[in-house]
Amino acid sequence: MANTKTLYQHGTLALLVPGLLDGTITMKELLEHGDTGIGTGEGLDGELIILDGVPYQVASDGKVNVVKDDFTLPFANSHFGEYRNLTTVDALSPKELETKILAMTSSNTFFSIKVHGTFTNMKTRAVKKSHKPYATLGKTAEDQSIFVQESVEGTLLSYYSPTIFDGAAVGGFHHHFLSDAHDFGGHVLGFGGATGSVMIQQFDTLEQHLPVNNPDYMNFDFSDWDILSDIHKAES
Amino acid sequence: MANTKTLYQHGTLALLVPGLLDGTITMKELLEHGDTGIGTGEGLDGELIILDGVPYQVASDGKVNVVKDDFTLPFANSHFGEYRNLTTVDALSPKELETKILAMTSSNTFFSIKVHGTFTNMKTRAVKKSHKPYATLGKTAEDQSIFVQESVEGTLLSYYSPTIFDGAAVGGFHHHFLSDAHDFGGHVLGFGGATGSVMIQQFDTLEQHLPVNNPDYMNFDFSDWDILSDIHKAES
Repeated sequence: MANTKTLYQHGTLALLVPGLLDGTITMKELLEHGDTGIGTGEGLDGELIILDGVPYQVASDGKVNVVKDDFTLPFANSHFGEYRNLTTVDALSPKELETKILAMTSSNTFFSIKVHGTFTNMKTRAVKKSHKPYATLGKTAEDQSIFVQESVEGTLLSYYSPTIFDGAAVGGFHHHFLSDAHDFGGHVLGFGGATGSVMIQQFDTLEQHLPVNNPDYMNFDFSDWDILSDIHKAES
Repeated sequence: MANTKTLYQHGTLALLVPGLLDGTITMKELLEHGDTGIGTGEGLDGELIILDGVPYQVASDGKVNVVKDDFTLPFANSHFGEYRNLTTVDALSPKELETKILAMTSSNTFFSIKVHGTFTNMKTRAVKKSHKPYATLGKTAEDQSIFVQESVEGTLLSYYSPTIFDGAAVGGFHHHFLSDAHDFGGHVLGFGGATGSVMIQQFDTLEQHLPVNNPDYMNFDFSDWDILSDIHKAES
């Protein structure tokens, strides 16, 4: 039986910061840990969102592709979906939405949110794939495309990490989006208002998997890097 | 088959800091995730060390007890032992031992060390159990006993956590000790020299389990606490 209490994470945000962008897990392996998820491809190749077992990639040209089993990722989350209805919302900003959710659930464990509905002024980004030797996360992420839709129906898939795990994950919410038409999405930079249903799934376990077979990661000296401050810059 | 690549962790050091000291996992449950481990009891009731499936508690009166299945813990690590020989050491200080180990393995993933041999001037501590309402970790840990043996044979069991996971775990090494005679041990404050064999087991996964059924934890507001600085004070 699928374990619906565990959030699987491959890699950590910390390793992206200095540019350890090798793909160290295949999509096939990632899907063994869930049918729902987010991530990025090797060299920050677009923004991934997995819904109902189908892995969509929003590429930097704006196209939405379904990726193959052998697509690799340096960083990703997945879990087996078993959401429950939490609430409905009407034209809430990201800040209002997050505040409303946190008033209804504990912020001391990992959880996922799925909002399906209509979003106004949805603004997303997708980073362009870079190649070895990789630059830092900050530098690589500068080469990104930004997409905006005035009104779009779709799914906002979010993970929340307690701030005490800041570094391993991004403390707080991390939102990806895919339109119902499968023609628009990415890492969410902002939106005007969200109207629709909000579902939640709370986890009791983070299964943190590290790329121990990747020498670049294993031999890297993190001691000179201010990882947390760089994460907050790149992910905001 | 036992998973020897995963380090299981129940609770986080962060929750101990403000004094969330309820026992939220039983020893029976903890042993389902490993035959080797460390931890502390409810209310910081002594220092636990699990060797070959046997859970020993060094209590604040210095006695070493084997605890029962229903003994509860707020924080613990366990894993299924499958160590390999790393090296032998001769009269190394804790600092020299740690430096030697880190020169031979990556510091970017979790691992465990087992040193069996003779230790000079081994200094350990065990905290005295406190009761609800609990004080902070710093305050509770003040009520501790310190034990010293000039020369003792035994096992040093250590976990190493990458500093990028500081907060969830103690970044760096965390050492517990048990004498071969099972009459002395605890959380290691220091030793003169370690002479013996060093074994290592590297993990690729941290399975971080949180006490989601404990309302005190789930409702706690961590935002006013400088968790990291308090951890470094209490664990040094």
